[in-house]
Amino acid sequence: MLVQLKEMVLQANLDLPKFGLVTFTWGNVSGIDRETGLVVIKPSGVDYGKLRLEDLVVLNLDGKIVEGKLKPSSDTPTHLALYRAFPQIGGIVHTHSPWATSWAQAGRGIPALGTTHADYFYGEIPCTRVMTREEIEGAYELETGRVIIETLRDRGIDPAFVPGVLVHGHAPFAFGRDARSAVRNAVVMEEVAKMGIHTYQLNPAASSIDQALLDRHYLRKHGANAYYGQKGAN
Amino acid sequence: MLVQLKEMVLQANLDLPKFGLVTFTWGNVSGIDRETGLVVIKPSGVDYGKLRLEDLVVLNLDGKIVEGKLKPSSDTPTHLALYRAFPQIGGIVHTHSPWATSWAQAGRGIPALGTTHADYFYGEIPCTRVMTREEIEGAYELETGRVIIETLRDRGIDPAFVPGVLVHGHAPFAFGRDARSAVRNAVVMEEVAKMGIHTYQLNPAASSIDQALLDRHYLRKHGANAYYGQKGAN
Amino acid sequence: MLVQLKEMVLQANLDLPKFGLVTFTWGNVSGIDRETGLVVIKPSGVDYGKLRLEDLVVLNLDGKIVEGKLKPSSDTPTHLALYRAFPQIGGIVHTHSPWATSWAQAGRGIPALGTTHADYFYGEIPCTRVMTREEIEGAYELETGRVIIETLRDRGIDPAFVPGVLVHGHAPFAFGRDARSAVRNAVVMEEVAKMGIHTYQLNPAASSIDQALLDRHYLRKHGANAYYGQKGAN
Amino acid sequence: MLVQLKEMVLQANLDLPKFGLVTFTWGNVSGIDRETGLVVIKPSGVDYGKLRLEDLVVLNLDGKIVEGKLKPSSDTPTHLALYRAFPQIGGIVHTHSPWATSWAQAGRGIPALGTTHADYFYGEIPCTRVMTREEIEGAYELETGRVIIETLRDRGIDPAFVPGVLVHGHAPFAFGRDARSAVRNAVVMEEVAKMGIHTYQLNPAASSIDQALLDRHYLRKHGANAYYGQKGAN
Repeated sequence: MLVQLKEMVLQANLDLPKFGLVTFTWGNVSGIDRETGLVVIKPSGVDYGKLRLEDLVVLNLDGKIVEGKLKPSSDTPTHLALYRAFPQIGGIVHTHSPWATSWAQAGRGIPALGTTHADYFYGEIPCTRVMTREEIEGAYELETGRVIIETLRDRGIDPAFVPGVLVHGHAPFAFGRDARSAVRNAVVMEEVAKMGIHTYQLNPAASSIDQALLDRHYLRKHGANAYYGQKGAN
Repeated sequence: MLVQLKEMVLQANLDLPKFGLVTFTWGNVSGIDRETGLVVIKPSGVDYGKLRLEDLVVLNLDGKIVEGKLKPSSDTPTHLALYRAFPQIGGIVHTHSPWATSWAQAGRGIPALGTTHADYFYGEIPCTRVMTREEIEGAYELETGRVIIETLRDRGIDPAFVPGVLVHGHAPFAFGRDARSAVRNAVVMEEVAKMGIHTYQLNPAASSIDQALLDRHYLRKHGANAYYGQKGAN
Repeated sequence: MLVQLKEMVLQANLDLPKFGLVTFTWGNVSGIDRETGLVVIKPSGVDYGKLRLEDLVVLNLDGKIVEGKLKPSSDTPTHLALYRAFPQIGGIVHTHSPWATSWAQAGRGIPALGTTHADYFYGEIPCTRVMTREEIEGAYELETGRVIIETLRDRGIDPAFVPGVLVHGHAPFAFGRDARSAVRNAVVMEEVAKMGIHTYQLNPAASSIDQALLDRHYLRKHGANAYYGQKGAN
Repeated sequence: MLVQLKEMVLQANLDLPKFGLVTFTWGNVSGIDRETGLVVIKPSGVDYGKLRLEDLVVLNLDGKIVEGKLKPSSDTPTHLALYRAFPQIGGIVHTHSPWATSWAQAGRGIPALGTTHADYFYGEIPCTRVMTREEIEGAYELETGRVIIETLRDRGIDPAFVPGVLVHGHAPFAFGRDARSAVRNAVVMEEVAKMGIHTYQLNPAASSIDQALLDRHYLRKHGANAYYGQKGAN
């Protein structure tokens, strides 16, 4: 069942340490099959080096486990809330990658300071508000999903266009049309997070690039008129 | 004698260069067998690449060598003082890992700026006071242990919950229930030390996370109601 | 046709990830054969791991493809504009290498803060002005080339002597007498970009080295009286 | 002739890229045989990957080549001046290692901010004054040696105790009792240079450690009463 999806989710999880995004087991990737509404996610606290296809957990959007012997990632309720809210996303990555996490700890969104950002994120990567004591002491992981949804909706952000968010005092989540593209976006977020810190070091008054440049770079890689790569879309 | 403990201490020492925590021979790990009161520790100044099981030194808590042909780490009196003071710790790591050492040189404790910190350290990682000339010129390594003990006790910190400390102008020590967990905590301390520097760069007014978030993250990984990982405790 | 040039351009492209200058496919190298006026360039969006000699695209200086089945890099019009404007350059590299890109995002040129810089760049590596909306919405990649040309010409910079430029809000371009030397200059630019950020961190008032030191270092490696290396020129 | 010295100098040169101290060919190590007064040094501009024992150049202290077919490092006159001035040093390393070079570009010496520094350098690593136009346009490499000598002598620094110096606007030189120990000191200088930048970032008012702590750490590793390592001296 869902063999292809599982293979992509397994590979996407293994790509996290390969791209330097995780220490120990601090990260998880999921992917969803929209036809059946089933989500494949990493089990909780399993070393990447030992992760096998049969360790992945399959759940429906209500959180009922339909396959797998291990406990799913403790962040599963966050993933499910995001899949329920945003039908346009097919993969989710959560890491504590150090540069993006530094922005989350600083409580700042990452502005579009250059074309590297614009190639993948159509505007600032937002940072959520601080979560309330009630949210934290309640269904914390579900509430984490809700504060992400609130952040994107309040600012009119479509996660298909700005596929990432920082949870205040916590760490980044990245999205994509599937698990593989979500990992790619997580890598890019880490890279622009790093460059952003150095940019502000050189120029505390550095500002976001103009809308025209944002449009040009984002649209040359994405959408109907994309002209980057071999297929017109990459 | 103590073969299992020695194997863990050997592996823990070899993990220091693997995780990028040491240059040359700048680090040492020990572990204790609480039943016999015997401590296994790295010999002084031996390259990690050449370290073998039979090179490890076994001492009792008074510092008497009971096995081993090599001199123990020059930091041994610090380790022993900590084992005597805190029965709840089973492993100790000392390194000069560069990010944590930068905090020690700056004379600042590492606040809990995010959930990565909260997952392993239940509050600020403290920095000791400056040691006095008398302490330095006396039994220096023993006094280093004493100033660590003083720092934890004065602030009411249980090293089982905040398994790390910075010695002012020197470098970090990390603790754990055994040598392996002490290394894990040393890795985390280095990671939060790095992220903390970048967090303050982005936001000099960044503050510690709320108690509720600290509780939630620490307790979902530790203690009776932990729900992270496959066994309820990780 | 142009086998030797293709081999150098292939190798130069493969050197980008080797030297840590690129993430994913974010970079491209070209080289020109001045006798035939033909340019060899990387195809768009192809992974470095899969890049083969036959994937390279050959174009004339007007942009007509004369060999190759794949689409050339989307940045090709920038490369061609630079080759047309500056007969003294034989290779071009474009990357989003993180340290140099941080300077581009900050909108600052990289001053000659030390002899490492002077060994390869005979003065400040300039940063272009912000591109206009018209330029961005027009023939963007061609206009990028034009703003680079304008920047060098307005400041009287010969790209044979200062083989690099930063495009404002975007990223670096490096030049060389061939593709290999352009990659070498891209590596150096990244290195001096990194050191420059740390230099200003230590001393916000740090200034460029004196003209005499710039002369000495640049000229001991370049030109008729060079005395570095085994051939008098390296 | 001098086979053992050549082997150590070769290995010391190969250790530079291994420890991440050099890009391309930016570095050189020499060693001296004090009995014969002969110096073995790396040839100029030769890739570390291709360096063989027979490529090394042997010169006397007046700079006369007595063995070797290649040109010696262009920095040879600096090395020779230092060997002539300081009989207590047996090996010299010059690199453009990025963190130490950032201090040189900032024109600042590296204070003893912690015990890592004190373990190898008995006090601040000084930075020379800016060289004059006459010095730069004259016998530049010899004058570089002279300004280093002046810096050490004016401050009463014995390079056996503080085995490193920063040349203003240029880069570090490290010394040792032989080539191997000079490389070790170059590695340590890079490490304390890195930590020093981060220390000041956290605490711009950070100060040098007390003399007592400097004494304790330096002397536990060096001198007659050293007690670090297996031989009492390391």
